[in-house]
Amino acid sequence: SEPYSLLILPGDGIGPEVMAEVVKVIDWFQANRGLNFDVSHDLVGGAAYDAHGVPLADDTMARAQAADAVLLGAVGGPKYDQLDFSVKPERGLLRLRKEMDLFANLRPAQCFDALADFSSLKRDVVAGLDILIVRELTSGVYFGEPRGIHSDDNNPENEGGRVGINTQRYTSGEIRRVARAAFELAKRRGNKVCSMEKANVMESGILWREEVQWVHDNEYPDVELTHMYADNGAMQLVRRPQQFDVIVTDNLFGDILSDAAAMLTGSLGMLPSASLGAPMANGRPKALYEPVHGSAPDIAGQGKANPIACILSFAMALRYSFDQGDAAAELEQAVEKVLADGVRTPDLMGAQGGIQVSTAQMGDKIIAAL
Amino acid sequence: SEPYSLLILPGDGIGPEVMAEVVKVIDWFQANRGLNFDVSHDLVGGAAYDAHGVPLADDTMARAQAADAVLLGAVGGPKYDQLDFSVKPERGLLRLRKEMDLFANLRPAQCFDALADFSSLKRDVVAGLDILIVRELTSGVYFGEPRGIHSDDNNPENEGGRVGINTQRYTSGEIRRVARAAFELAKRRGNKVCSMEKANVMESGILWREEVQWVHDNEYPDVELTHMYADNGAMQLVRRPQQFDVIVTDNLFGDILSDAAAMLTGSLGMLPSASLGAPMANGRPKALYEPVHGSAPDIAGQGKANPIACILSFAMALRYSFDQGDAAAELEQAVEKVLADGVRTPDLMGAQGGIQVSTAQMGDKIIAAL
Ligand SMILES: CC(C)[C@H](C(=O)O)[C@@H](O)C(=O)O
Ligand SMILES: CC(C)[C@H](C(=O)O)[C@@H](O)C(=O)O
Repeated sequence: SEPYSLLILPGDGIGPEVMAEVVKVIDWFQANRGLNFDVSHDLVGGAAYDAHGVPLADDTMARAQAADAVLLGAVGGPKYDQLDFSVKPERGLLRLRKEMDLFANLRPAQCFDALADFSSLKRDVVAGLDILIVRELTSGVYFGEPRGIHSDDNNPENEGGRVGINTQRYTSGEIRRVARAAFELAKRRGNKVCSMEKANVMESGILWREEVQWVHDNEYPDVELTHMYADNGAMQLVRRPQQFDVIVTDNLFGDILSDAAAMLTGSLGMLPSASLGAPMANGRPKALYEPVHGSAPDIAGQGKANPIACILSFAMALRYSFDQGDAAAELEQAVEKVLADGVRTPDLMGAQGGIQVSTAQMGDKIIAAL
Repeated sequence: SEPYSLLILPGDGIGPEVMAEVVKVIDWFQANRGLNFDVSHDLVGGAAYDAHGVPLADDTMARAQAADAVLLGAVGGPKYDQLDFSVKPERGLLRLRKEMDLFANLRPAQCFDALADFSSLKRDVVAGLDILIVRELTSGVYFGEPRGIHSDDNNPENEGGRVGINTQRYTSGEIRRVARAAFELAKRRGNKVCSMEKANVMESGILWREEVQWVHDNEYPDVELTHMYADNGAMQLVRRPQQFDVIVTDNLFGDILSDAAAMLTGSLGMLPSASLGAPMANGRPKALYEPVHGSAPDIAGQGKANPIACILSFAMALRYSFDQGDAAAELEQAVEKVLADGVRTPDLMGAQGGIQVSTAQMGDKIIAAL
């Protein structure tokens, strides 16, 4: 059959190291499960800036548009902190999200039983945790116009004389499509969606609430829908995260709430994400997969990084892009087995100890468990 | 000496109940510590809407402007959920903040030793926690223009045909004044400020970072300043909150992060807040004090509410408005003693048990401990 085309963008910091382990996993599935991938590599973030002066070259953008799925490592690092806003590593990632129109960012926050003691939360609060945050990813304050920093010289009361502006802007259509994604996912899980905004202070939040309710009432009346203010949402995530199944929220709230939720699990190095767009001609959604963790420049190049989040991102690709749910489950089980065996990268070495391994050794152990 | 003028706005839900206990405490300080208060009462939120059709009458606004300090209970409730945005209970509170120009919202997140086991976090992560979030309160997306919901009919791609807009807008002067408040407070505490924004995706965040750095370099070079992206801030608050001393952030991030921080302590019913503006002619800052918890309509009128957050808000008033630091400390110690004695409102009755009391009994116990 036609090979699946996969574009790999390792990016910066620990990105290349963790991606090297994913490549081993891809090779294993090709050799042993008859899957056929056409893999190519390219640059994003600081690595792209170093080579081309931009954090994502047009040519790379075109290849991403044409790929069945993109796998991304991580972007950013102190080396690039002083760069102009328009060429910062993050802009490369944001361009991919925007131009591929990846409106639904799926961020599972799952607590692995073998690692529950890693959480700063009590074991009984997080053990078995399995929530899915669906974050809108192509609109809101991340992309709204007008934006920028301007001088405000004719305002004598403004010490400093500048003003910074961003615009939170959502259309009803943008809200409806991400709401549909959330309801669809909920149907395959716990059948509950909690939508979060600040409708008590923001009109865009009122529109958000009304449109999510509209999609529910007209298309998914059998899924349980609740609404919560985002500040209360942050509290409830800390207090009793297991009350949630699927959470749907906007780009900025999603950024913050999904990171808080990720940290509940205690093991950021374990968490994958998928960013999905509309179906392409071949029926597959446009898709980008990436670990939730960042580029971790402090440990880059030392073989200390945990490749599991990136490997599990590939498992999400198997499930959501290639309809290979069995292969995805096989990979996820291999990860769980390795963890249950006590194999640990340094970030997972806690009070309990374990068998400490390097990035590459962790990849090898997972392959061995497959 | 001149009495201190105090305007009491109990508001909705449990507001009146908890405020009744504060009044007892005020009376005690008048009778026993020679403090002289001129106390008056008025309406805010749903209670004001019921009486006047607006969540804050002009007359009440004028009295708040003239008062040395305002004490507020809580606003909102399901009864008012269907009201138009412009007259929702929250608008009363937002009008007070805006027109009194209360730009610095102080939200201490302190973990009381007797209650550390209430937290969903592990005891060693939160015991002794004492951080102070300084949230900008009069600007940003809460008040920025343009805002609203509009029809977007000439956009055939927008299913639903509407668009919701809010504007994040900060001037350099608005950022500098709240940064100064944070640095001043840090000097009296751990001498560390962490500023949080999303400078990697928002220009208003870049301005925020630059202006906070400017105030630091020019006016507070001896206070330690760090910057953190707000999503990482949410993570770090969950992971290792004790790394922070003072956090300074904008109105919307502050709303979410301070609520997450509050929940770390496990006892929302304990947490006060102060909202301060510029000094008045008498040298005192414009000021409003309120508990962090909401109106809790589900338990309103049942004598179950915990009055401590509201009582500690009055302690903050003693400290920040009336320069009565000794009286404030005396009140705080009385609260700690009552907790150490095992006296508990229902929200504080956990696995450990304790002596369960009503709202009014808790007030009486605190008076007795004074
Ligand atoms: C790197 C950054 C631009 C990005 C974001 O803010 O969306 C990151 O925090 C994320 O959540 O993927
Ligand atoms: C009631 C609401 C308007 C308010 C806010 O969003 O600021 C509340 O959440 C708070 O934090 O004081």
